[in-house]
Amino acid sequence: MPIRTVVWGENVHEKEDATVRGIYPKGMHATIADALNTDADIKATTATLDQPEHGLTEARLAETDVLTWWGHAAHDKVDNAIVDRVAQRVWEGMGLVVLHSGHFSKIFKKLMGTPCALQWREAGEKERVWVVNRNHPIAQGLGESFVVPETEMYGEPFSIPEPMETVFISWYDGGNVFRSGVTYERGGGRVFYFSPGHEVYPIYHNKDVQTVLRNAVKWAHNQARFPAAQWEGRMAKPYEPITAKGPTLASRGPRR
Amino acid sequence: MPIRTVVWGENVHEKEDATVRGIYPKGMHATIADALNTDADIKATTATLDQPEHGLTEARLAETDVLTWWGHAAHDKVDNAIVDRVAQRVWEGMGLVVLHSGHFSKIFKKLMGTPCALQWREAGEKERVWVVNRNHPIAQGLGESFVVPETEMYGEPFSIPEPMETVFISWYDGGNVFRSGVTYERGGGRVFYFSPGHEVYPIYHNKDVQTVLRNAVKWAHNQARFPAAQWEGRMAKPYEPITAKGPTLASRGPRR
Amino acid sequence: MPIRTVVWGENVHEKEDATVRGIYPKGMHATIADALNTDADIKATTATLDQPEHGLTEARLAETDVLTWWGHAAHDKVDNAIVDRVAQRVWEGMGLVVLHSGHFSKIFKKLMGTPCALQWREAGEKERVWVVNRNHPIAQGLGESFVVPETEMYGEPFSIPEPMETVFISWYDGGNVFRSGVTYERGGGRVFYFSPGHEVYPIYHNKDVQTVLRNAVKWAHNQARFPAAQWEGRMAKPYEPITAKGPTLASRGPRR
Amino acid sequence: MPIRTVVWGENVHEKEDATVRGIYPKGMHATIADALNTDADIKATTATLDQPEHGLTEARLAETDVLTWWGHAAHDKVDNAIVDRVAQRVWEGMGLVVLHSGHFSKIFKKLMGTPCALQWREAGEKERVWVVNRNHPIAQGLGESFVVPETEMYGEPFSIPEPMETVFISWYDGGNVFRSGVTYERGGGRVFYFSPGHEVYPIYHNKDVQTVLRNAVKWAHNQARFPAAQWEGRMAKPYEPITAKGPTLASRGPRR
Repeated sequence: MPIRTVVWGENVHEKEDATVRGIYPKGMHATIADALNTDADIKATTATLDQPEHGLTEARLAETDVLTWWGHAAHDKVDNAIVDRVAQRVWEGMGLVVLHSGHFSKIFKKLMGTPCALQWREAGEKERVWVVNRNHPIAQGLGESFVVPETEMYGEPFSIPEPMETVFISWYDGGNVFRSGVTYERGGGRVFYFSPGHEVYPIYHNKDVQTVLRNAVKWAHNQARFPAAQWEGRMAKPYEPITAKGPTLASRGPRR
Repeated sequence: MPIRTVVWGENVHEKEDATVRGIYPKGMHATIADALNTDADIKATTATLDQPEHGLTEARLAETDVLTWWGHAAHDKVDNAIVDRVAQRVWEGMGLVVLHSGHFSKIFKKLMGTPCALQWREAGEKERVWVVNRNHPIAQGLGESFVVPETEMYGEPFSIPEPMETVFISWYDGGNVFRSGVTYERGGGRVFYFSPGHEVYPIYHNKDVQTVLRNAVKWAHNQARFPAAQWEGRMAKPYEPITAKGPTLASRGPRR
Repeated sequence: MPIRTVVWGENVHEKEDATVRGIYPKGMHATIADALNTDADIKATTATLDQPEHGLTEARLAETDVLTWWGHAAHDKVDNAIVDRVAQRVWEGMGLVVLHSGHFSKIFKKLMGTPCALQWREAGEKERVWVVNRNHPIAQGLGESFVVPETEMYGEPFSIPEPMETVFISWYDGGNVFRSGVTYERGGGRVFYFSPGHEVYPIYHNKDVQTVLRNAVKWAHNQARFPAAQWEGRMAKPYEPITAKGPTLASRGPRR
Repeated sequence: MPIRTVVWGENVHEKEDATVRGIYPKGMHATIADALNTDADIKATTATLDQPEHGLTEARLAETDVLTWWGHAAHDKVDNAIVDRVAQRVWEGMGLVVLHSGHFSKIFKKLMGTPCALQWREAGEKERVWVVNRNHPIAQGLGESFVVPETEMYGEPFSIPEPMETVFISWYDGGNVFRSGVTYERGGGRVFYFSPGHEVYPIYHNKDVQTVLRNAVKWAHNQARFPAAQWEGRMAKPYEPITAKGPTLASRGPRR
């Protein structure tokens, strides 16, 4: 069965800005989904901010293996209840691929526990993305590095927790560097952040970037996810014979 | 200068329950602070839930190097604004030592990005705390293991992110195990979680537990913390000469 | 194509000791290989110390996706050149599953860079293996814990580097704990250490242990391995136009 | 008591090459030791390859808190017994700071378990060292980045295990990036690798580089180191009452 993937797009710039619409007439989310669907192992559909429940209903998330997330101008408009719902699904095993300005999304900051801040510069400079670990599944099919000819610079310090793996590090004309591809695990879910993808450049049309997106969806797909119950606490019976002793809360009455 | 430490206590059980009050007449927070203050390198004071701003005003946190946190019955009563304030200070470099049932506190869950759930059992059983890394500063002065004669069992699976270091693993009579001492870094702040410390047993009177508390405060103390500004994003000038090119948002007008 | 797996066995106890031979008439390696071959996705064969080049010729390793390693009495008899050859293949992407007393093998110590020492006790006590992360692929098909009724105790401190992931932690009758399943990445290769498997108990006949072995082989299989050249240094041309400047070694003559 | 630091230098280029001797008349090791000794908390002395036992006798290492290591042309001339002795001391708690071409030293490769290979280019190009985590003790006193005006390029992929912390990432004129400051723990010892330091440029005279060296020695100093015995395996008595059962090796005779 193909990996059931939902490409979430904020879809604000595309509606409001002629430059962005010129590059992504159907929206960035549609371009990303099209790129994913060239792989028979992936079945990608889209969801956007302006849909009811941002297109991320309980029922839909229950049938989603991997979610990709692009937002920029409207992070604050994403409903907290939906963010909690997405986090819950990640803990249960849904993969999450966070793209570009999604570093400041509620869901990414919630899962990281840090500010996720960075330096930036919009000057159309060149970015060279270096593959730190060519054996990582997310790097399959790439050379030792690839170039994004015009990019928004994202630079260190990037205030994220130390990654599980650093897959990509980017070099920029203007003298900056950035950990542009990093992995995490949160509960049962795998999380990948990938920085290339500014809205005013045609980055999601780039062949190497599309390769990364497909690889990332496959890497983030955990076939072994468990029901939510695992992620809730519970009282446990003893696994070996013991005799309960010691006090308990007085308000509970004496231990029997 | 001694490490300015604030021992935060929920202080609910101590007021409401005779068993707890019998063990900790001045409150668990006072016992913990007294234990810390036996070390001349630490200057510990206390703060509690029932104080204005939970005793954690901006002014006070600005002069706090390390915060310890014990809560259980009233996690939900902690104001979200105070939680955000504490998190901000951790990112800036304040150390945080989370104790026992604090695994379910808002601040710990916020910094971890996971449910932080576990199994538990209150039966006064024996806990043997194994030192996984005897060279870790938090383990100084301990033997290869130490015993908490009566404890609440906290058991795996403990849904936390993979720790930076696993310092302690506990064994229980009833057949369970638990990663009872784990470290993290979040922004500039060091975080240590330590599980022994149930309110109905005199665990914070235990000599080895007190050693761990003192060591943990010293380990969590980052003398190098930076102002908040580091943890906010900012636009960056080029560090090498570049010529800006490419489009920008149409709504901003043409690039000059 | 099934995962080409070589099960390496020291095969010393099996030949010399009646107790071991009684449990593993064809050798532990044969029992392990049989357990792996019940899965159609795995094609396991065996190799032993007493074969030429310990059964691990260049040609054979070149066609091996995953190697499992059990040794105990004869670690010193393994030729250093073969150890280097195996390490090279791991760096190139071959998976390695190290079993039980293999913690003291040359290959494991070489890849870890630490003593890999531990406490032990042979008393047939009970081991309960706790699944720390039930979503990990190596834990698929297991319950929250499983029991090895008679085991050799392996206990902390286990002097390994901090693992990438702690998958299992074991509890023992005698009061010890152990990180019984841990993962690493070394170059392109994934490494999994799994402790249950003492030669005088029928542990490799245990159903849950066999499940772990099959899962581990699948997890360690990196479909993306690269040729050895990646793991050698090389001089690099500039990726951006530069003018060489500054001194060089005088013995090389002046920079042109 | 100041941190007892030994600065180990290969001292080959300095003797053989006029360019290197011009920059470091007393040897690179002397320049590094002088830079360390400007800090009253450090007491640095030197040792070189050509001394008996390379200047690293048992007695001297027993009184060494931190060792720094620079080698390039003669890695193979370092005696394996001395390498094993240094590794043993690291496991016991001695800090190790590996410099520049020391990435290919026997001791670093032994502790890492990977090839530690990289790309390089000697063209005197500019290196900008970015501070990824400004709160890390090794970054104290630095700005957000610093420049090495003429450097040898060291570039990714750098085949090391995933670091505990990435402290610095370097940018180069020629389009490359490099994790130029990374931390590890191995047994009781802390290990820091720092790449700037090519022999034909005056890099160890650079003020920011010297700040890093001093910080690194302080960070690597573990006041809590244990005797070697901890890093050896041993048979353990039961910590809880058990009755030994099950078979043992037939050759040992029946279990009593």
